[in-house]
Amino acid sequence: MRMYDLIEKKKMGKRLSDEEISFIIENYTKGEIPDYQMSALLMAIYFQGMDKEETLALTMAMRDSGEVLDLSGIHGVKVDKHSTGGVGDKTSLALTPIVAACGVPVAKMSGRGLGHTGGTIDKLECFPGFTTEISDETFIKNVNEIGIAIAGQTANLAPADKKLYALRDVTATVNQISLIASSIMSKKLASGSDAIVLDVKTGNGAFMKTMEDSVALAKEMVSIGHLAGKQIVAYITEMDQPLGNAVGNSVEVAEAIETLKGNGPKDFTELVYALASEMLQFGGVCDTPEKARAKISEVIENGKALEKLAEFVRAQGGDDYFVFHPEEFPKTAYTREVPSPSDGYVKRILAEDIGIACMTLGGGRETKESEIDLSVGILLKEKIGAKVQKGDTLAVIYGNDKEKMDKVYEMIQNAYEFDDNEVGIPCVIKERISPEQ
Amino acid sequence: MRMYDLIEKKKMGKRLSDEEISFIIENYTKGEIPDYQMSALLMAIYFQGMDKEETLALTMAMRDSGEVLDLSGIHGVKVDKHSTGGVGDKTSLALTPIVAACGVPVAKMSGRGLGHTGGTIDKLECFPGFTTEISDETFIKNVNEIGIAIAGQTANLAPADKKLYALRDVTATVNQISLIASSIMSKKLASGSDAIVLDVKTGNGAFMKTMEDSVALAKEMVSIGHLAGKQIVAYITEMDQPLGNAVGNSVEVAEAIETLKGNGPKDFTELVYALASEMLQFGGVCDTPEKARAKISEVIENGKALEKLAEFVRAQGGDDYFVFHPEEFPKTAYTREVPSPSDGYVKRILAEDIGIACMTLGGGRETKESEIDLSVGILLKEKIGAKVQKGDTLAVIYGNDKEKMDKVYEMIQNAYEFDDNEVGIPCVIKERISPEQ
Repeated sequence: MRMYDLIEKKKMGKRLSDEEISFIIENYTKGEIPDYQMSALLMAIYFQGMDKEETLALTMAMRDSGEVLDLSGIHGVKVDKHSTGGVGDKTSLALTPIVAACGVPVAKMSGRGLGHTGGTIDKLECFPGFTTEISDETFIKNVNEIGIAIAGQTANLAPADKKLYALRDVTATVNQISLIASSIMSKKLASGSDAIVLDVKTGNGAFMKTMEDSVALAKEMVSIGHLAGKQIVAYITEMDQPLGNAVGNSVEVAEAIETLKGNGPKDFTELVYALASEMLQFGGVCDTPEKARAKISEVIENGKALEKLAEFVRAQGGDDYFVFHPEEFPKTAYTREVPSPSDGYVKRILAEDIGIACMTLGGGRETKESEIDLSVGILLKEKIGAKVQKGDTLAVIYGNDKEKMDKVYEMIQNAYEFDDNEVGIPCVIKERISPEQ
Repeated sequence: MRMYDLIEKKKMGKRLSDEEISFIIENYTKGEIPDYQMSALLMAIYFQGMDKEETLALTMAMRDSGEVLDLSGIHGVKVDKHSTGGVGDKTSLALTPIVAACGVPVAKMSGRGLGHTGGTIDKLECFPGFTTEISDETFIKNVNEIGIAIAGQTANLAPADKKLYALRDVTATVNQISLIASSIMSKKLASGSDAIVLDVKTGNGAFMKTMEDSVALAKEMVSIGHLAGKQIVAYITEMDQPLGNAVGNSVEVAEAIETLKGNGPKDFTELVYALASEMLQFGGVCDTPEKARAKISEVIENGKALEKLAEFVRAQGGDDYFVFHPEEFPKTAYTREVPSPSDGYVKRILAEDIGIACMTLGGGRETKESEIDLSVGILLKEKIGAKVQKGDTLAVIYGNDKEKMDKVYEMIQNAYEFDDNEVGIPCVIKERISPEQ
């Protein structure tokens, strides 16, 4: 088998066999297929696409390029959740304690933030002492004993995907549905869970800007998971504005804690309920959405969800004091209100720009090496559908550098778009995609 | 300017500006753009194409990546000829002495053979002592004094093309009209002639297998040459069988010499007349095709064309004895006739297979490093249109290795295709393409 012939084959629009795809991924990972041949193939795939079987084969080959986690030591149905990344997306922080409190084990790999989106690990580090660097034994022991553990992604999880993604990133071959889907799913399948709930963000602040692309990506991923024998479902959710009101690290943790106490923002609470409901059903704890929702309300109302967060934080070395006193997270030196520049109804809040504003304050990473300031952030006071008058406060900036805050002030004003006519409040959940569809 | 953005631009089907194309070629030649980005761009070009202006800009940028020969020291209009490569293509050997004998200076770069096609330099080395390694001064002096000089291609002629071609060769991005045309034309424009006659082979033994592709390539090259201010014309010529009867080195030289004496095969003679006629008109020696043909006949009949070949061979260190005694070229140890396996009319002779057969005998190079045997070859006795009976001799093999000859015997029999119905003799010239069209 020669890589040249496989590039030619895909270029001519023919399908690659499972064996051919394995050959490519195996030899590319080993460095025996050079980058310049791989990038030519990637561009040919961009133009000719891959069918469902090819995409599955690619996912499986990437999964098998490294370690496939063995979670058989964990009792029960392991349910994972993945988001394609958005602004203000603190979902895992509220979702996982709820699910664990309801009796479904959560064994999760998470990442750090990069660019305009934040990462769960950074947020969890708001609890002093908290670490995701735990051994495999501790990981499994914690899930079995308290029902929840979150670890950083190990380097050896789908290394082919890591290498391939780096190449796609510099050769303009990122935005191809099969390549995106296989990249995400190879890592999900390597992390060993039995069921997967996907949160595919759509809109200006998301990787997928249009409903059409988001649905296509969701369908592709659901198809891969299903063919790989996993229980799986995907939600397409709103990212034409940030999720919830808080964007930053400790401000998002505080918002997640409020949500665990039943006081969260409406859109965020709704999303957490929807995803948690699926996870409880996959986990076999509830057999209808109605029962699942009742169970979720129960662990929120009786404080078990919040207590589960505290237990989890302690188990990974963190101080749980802030779980019960989020108002005492370290404060920034300055706060500044951003007034509305005009009258009207909020039509859209460019979520990506709000994410970049937060990064500008020091709350996100421009490069992998950036140090981040956990205390800074933005609190949105008005969201889509709100009627505002000129001068009304749209958002509050929490910062430690006045110059940066001046810049961010303008960024936030520009991120808000207004309409003279009334604007409806958008549903956070746009569509649900399951394998049966 | 970032290479990433230019890949994305072409991927989306937009045109690249002259500045962008210069940036790419300049930085790729310097090694500042990596192969993996270049191959992604090449594949995007394969799918999205380039328009005439982009193709011209690419050609010019590649031409300017190295030395551009200055032939201003040569008196008169310098006319170059280029063939896309075929089997039995000894055209330059007969064409250049004729043109020079008619008074048009020939200053030519030639190459060695590779794969199933032969090279002019290898053939010229059948004259003992002949060399193409002559200084620039000798090159120009010879053209001025005797009207003809042929040199090997210098390494610094269009180095960007050399680097790019090597990458295309391993990334399945060779067969794109704009890339092929710019590759050929960048070298032609760098070699400094004023007018160019192109011979684009078409058919099974050619790089371009179909008339459609051959015409498209010819038009693209003629357009580039015209926009670059050169006089230019292209011929599409037959390669569904080898050109002439001889395939090999000394056998082809002998056939070229016979043609210079007026005894050449009909198809080959016709091609030489057509190309020479164009060169004489470009050179300003004749103003109509009729006058040009008369002039060509004259230098063949009065022996001046043959004498010009002898003069040229001597001027580059060769022994001209064989010019007048081609029958005394070193003989092979064996000859073997190939009989027709059936009755019928010859319909096609797979030229590529005949070329490979010659290479198998040792007359061509499998790799750039191969040593070649100048004495071996194949002489076709029957060509397309001939009526043959089973047992009639189709071809004669000249070889020095019986085992290889056994293999070649079968290859030749398989290369002949027959028809029960009468088959017309094809015209060697299929189409003429000029900038006015």
